[in-house]
Amino acid sequence: MHSLKPGFSAIANLNQVTEPAQTFDTKAIQALDTAHYLHPFTDFKDLNQKGARVMVKGDGIYIWDSEGKKILDAMSGLWCVNVGYGRNSISAAVYQQMETLPFYNSFFNTTNVPAAQLAAKLVEISPPQFSHVFFTSSGSEGNDTNLRMVRRYWDLLGYKDRHVIISRHNAYHGSTVAGASLGGMRAMHAQAGLPIPGIEHIGQPNYLESGRGMTEAEFGIKAASWLEDKILETGPEKVAAFIGEPIQGAGGVVIPPATYWPEIQRICDKYGILLIADEVICGFGRLGTWFGSERMGIRPDLMTFAKGVTSGYIPLGGVMVSDRVADILIEKGGDFNHGFTYSGHPVACAAALENIRILEQEKLIGQVANQTGPYLQQAFAQLASHPLVGFANSCGLVAGLNLVRQKAELQHDCVLFGTEQNVGMICRGYMFSQGIIMRAVGDRMIIAPPLCISVMQIDEMTGLIRSALDQTLEDLQARGWV
Amino acid sequence: MHSLKPGFSAIANLNQVTEPAQTFDTKAIQALDTAHYLHPFTDFKDLNQKGARVMVKGDGIYIWDSEGKKILDAMSGLWCVNVGYGRNSISAAVYQQMETLPFYNSFFNTTNVPAAQLAAKLVEISPPQFSHVFFTSSGSEGNDTNLRMVRRYWDLLGYKDRHVIISRHNAYHGSTVAGASLGGMRAMHAQAGLPIPGIEHIGQPNYLESGRGMTEAEFGIKAASWLEDKILETGPEKVAAFIGEPIQGAGGVVIPPATYWPEIQRICDKYGILLIADEVICGFGRLGTWFGSERMGIRPDLMTFAKGVTSGYIPLGGVMVSDRVADILIEKGGDFNHGFTYSGHPVACAAALENIRILEQEKLIGQVANQTGPYLQQAFAQLASHPLVGFANSCGLVAGLNLVRQKAELQHDCVLFGTEQNVGMICRGYMFSQGIIMRAVGDRMIIAPPLCISVMQIDEMTGLIRSALDQTLEDLQARGWV
Repeated sequence: MHSLKPGFSAIANLNQVTEPAQTFDTKAIQALDTAHYLHPFTDFKDLNQKGARVMVKGDGIYIWDSEGKKILDAMSGLWCVNVGYGRNSISAAVYQQMETLPFYNSFFNTTNVPAAQLAAKLVEISPPQFSHVFFTSSGSEGNDTNLRMVRRYWDLLGYKDRHVIISRHNAYHGSTVAGASLGGMRAMHAQAGLPIPGIEHIGQPNYLESGRGMTEAEFGIKAASWLEDKILETGPEKVAAFIGEPIQGAGGVVIPPATYWPEIQRICDKYGILLIADEVICGFGRLGTWFGSERMGIRPDLMTFAKGVTSGYIPLGGVMVSDRVADILIEKGGDFNHGFTYSGHPVACAAALENIRILEQEKLIGQVANQTGPYLQQAFAQLASHPLVGFANSCGLVAGLNLVRQKAELQHDCVLFGTEQNVGMICRGYMFSQGIIMRAVGDRMIIAPPLCISVMQIDEMTGLIRSALDQTLEDLQARGWV
Repeated sequence: MHSLKPGFSAIANLNQVTEPAQTFDTKAIQALDTAHYLHPFTDFKDLNQKGARVMVKGDGIYIWDSEGKKILDAMSGLWCVNVGYGRNSISAAVYQQMETLPFYNSFFNTTNVPAAQLAAKLVEISPPQFSHVFFTSSGSEGNDTNLRMVRRYWDLLGYKDRHVIISRHNAYHGSTVAGASLGGMRAMHAQAGLPIPGIEHIGQPNYLESGRGMTEAEFGIKAASWLEDKILETGPEKVAAFIGEPIQGAGGVVIPPATYWPEIQRICDKYGILLIADEVICGFGRLGTWFGSERMGIRPDLMTFAKGVTSGYIPLGGVMVSDRVADILIEKGGDFNHGFTYSGHPVACAAALENIRILEQEKLIGQVANQTGPYLQQAFAQLASHPLVGFANSCGLVAGLNLVRQKAELQHDCVLFGTEQNVGMICRGYMFSQGIIMRAVGDRMIIAPPLCISVMQIDEMTGLIRSALDQTLEDLQARGWV
């Protein structure tokens, strides 16, 4: 052990930061943050110059920062706080589990009660082909598990060459080396020599970008055909699986045409390749069904989950494994040499059980399907009348709207802003100052509010969005950009 | 949503499993477990035939199973429960944080109080070259971060070819695709086409296996020289980093000769390559220093951590980033396109802060260095007198002993059992029935007890080990194997 480094008297003072409740020395926290915390997906130098906003409290669909500002969190944390903030019963379930067994591993023929119960519960709420669960601590680790599991599956069946996984440009499948490789984010691939071998990418079903001259239905079939093209180009005997998010999230809430996924399913079936649905964002009710695959009408062989499984309260992820895959692993596999210290973590599983109980008891998924989802769709349709909005769409409780310089009847005829104008980021700034968190993916503004949002709160949310759009318009007019 | 699958009335009945406290329907839990839970690193079919042992309670260094059996957990869960089980103050800290802010992300220029505080605290307790932390949820994700970070570092300095990372056979660096590739576990590489390109492996500093005819000191220098050989074979201009656990854990508690690590450091310095210490097992006091690197006398550029940072109570991991690396990322890097939803999770960070407070307040690390570590060393030296034990060694609170068919003065002259005899597993069974969890790596029996273990409890532990060794010996004699 070595002596204290200079400047560390500051830490002791910070204990006062959390007590008494609700007073925070923002500058002191920001100073520690700037000096020591390398944030995810961040330009560290840029952040250090600005100082981070300090989030300190959450309740329902709202969060508060250390300056007391109340903000409507239309992104559910990061697509995860499905039951909203401030759920005492989850805290209580976690506390109770920690007081009995705060940790034990599931290696070496041991288990724990919440892990076994949660496995059974997940099987109960998932589509009929699933009877088994593999636990991880994140969606990234879930997708790493998928890569290892599908290759193992084909190896056990004697198809040692079936190792290629096909994914899509702009897909997001996590930030491990394999997760980022499965994903199709150019900015991630540009760092550290990704993707790893054995992963191929096809175009995404983005009607705006690639659907000119086609109906949405036609474009859905066309976009799915790229999978067949890639299978044939790669050689069907080499393709292990296709992976996709039912609705691409980080890629900009890309809602595919209704024709897309059934055609993807048909192609997977035709060539016998496994279908992996990355349900990290769509799972646990986001689209008004337990899993997005149900809404999209597909029958995946593996489903990655995370985020909504605990509403993000405790880190947890995993993979739902269909009987097709599990039967082979169990019967022919012997040791599956993969897993994590925290696989089946009793505290995380206890949090998930209570989270799912809330989703069921409050009928939140039915509410999304029958009430708030349709209501949000109407609300976004009305937002589409705003002069800055080229078009807007939603599915369940994800939605997005595209900022355009000049509107048009057909979305393909809208005149877009230049990339370098960063209009999405300008708009996001006004959202923030209006007290709402909305994310910008290019010039597409997206939301995914907590599933507990009420119809009245949707009105409040769209009111804030409209005000921020007005302010953005004024700003852009002042710049002479519209 | 679909209708219930057959057999799911069983789940409702299981709520009674946890209440009233301390009565468990073991068969019912095992049935759910067998039907639905794919365990990590497990032969599923084999486990399904046996049924998993259900762990239900922990207190101090002990755990209890659902049948009421009390077991001394000499493996700290899975090398992680450093402060022991049953720490109410961690449960309380977690509860309090969950009641205020159960989740928020650190993307998009936001932070939270526990994340900033923990970053500062980790910098305070780590060696002087570290001022920054990158958070993940596991050691696996930490090592994925290392791979992406060291390549990014060299790219930013203009050395685009410096992408190769050198590791060691039998190393364990996690179970993501990159983590398992960095690791050197043959059984993991045999599944799913690992390792990925750009990773090389050298021999481990295992004196028993490779040191015949040399003193330990000579062998340490020799084993380190394999790194230089590999650097020259690869081309120094292509080597980004070397990664190693200060003491290899899952590889069998391989305690390197004292000469090894300083020589590794010298070679890394000579060629300017980064040194990554995987501190997932050795960090947070295991060797009587905050980090194993301090005990081994090295100055790593990156340190992976997990497990002991929260004593496993809540999943958390990350990487300590030295100024050498952080300065380049911050000043030249722009956006670092990497991170996780749960990076800087407020609840996990709150658990870590309280866990570290306990380690400090109870002076557990000094206790390991000055009292329990030396005492364990003596106790293991005495176990070496057992007829089955070829030799035994320890460092801080990790220790191991090798079962041999026939003892000898020099460890290289001991006569070993055949691999197919699985003597380690036989011995592990007797440990279990004696009420102690000890792990078998081949015929090496290893422990890593909680750091709160007392001298009296070490006596209890070694007493149990001796009894189980006696039983193993009787068994092997009955088989005619000794």
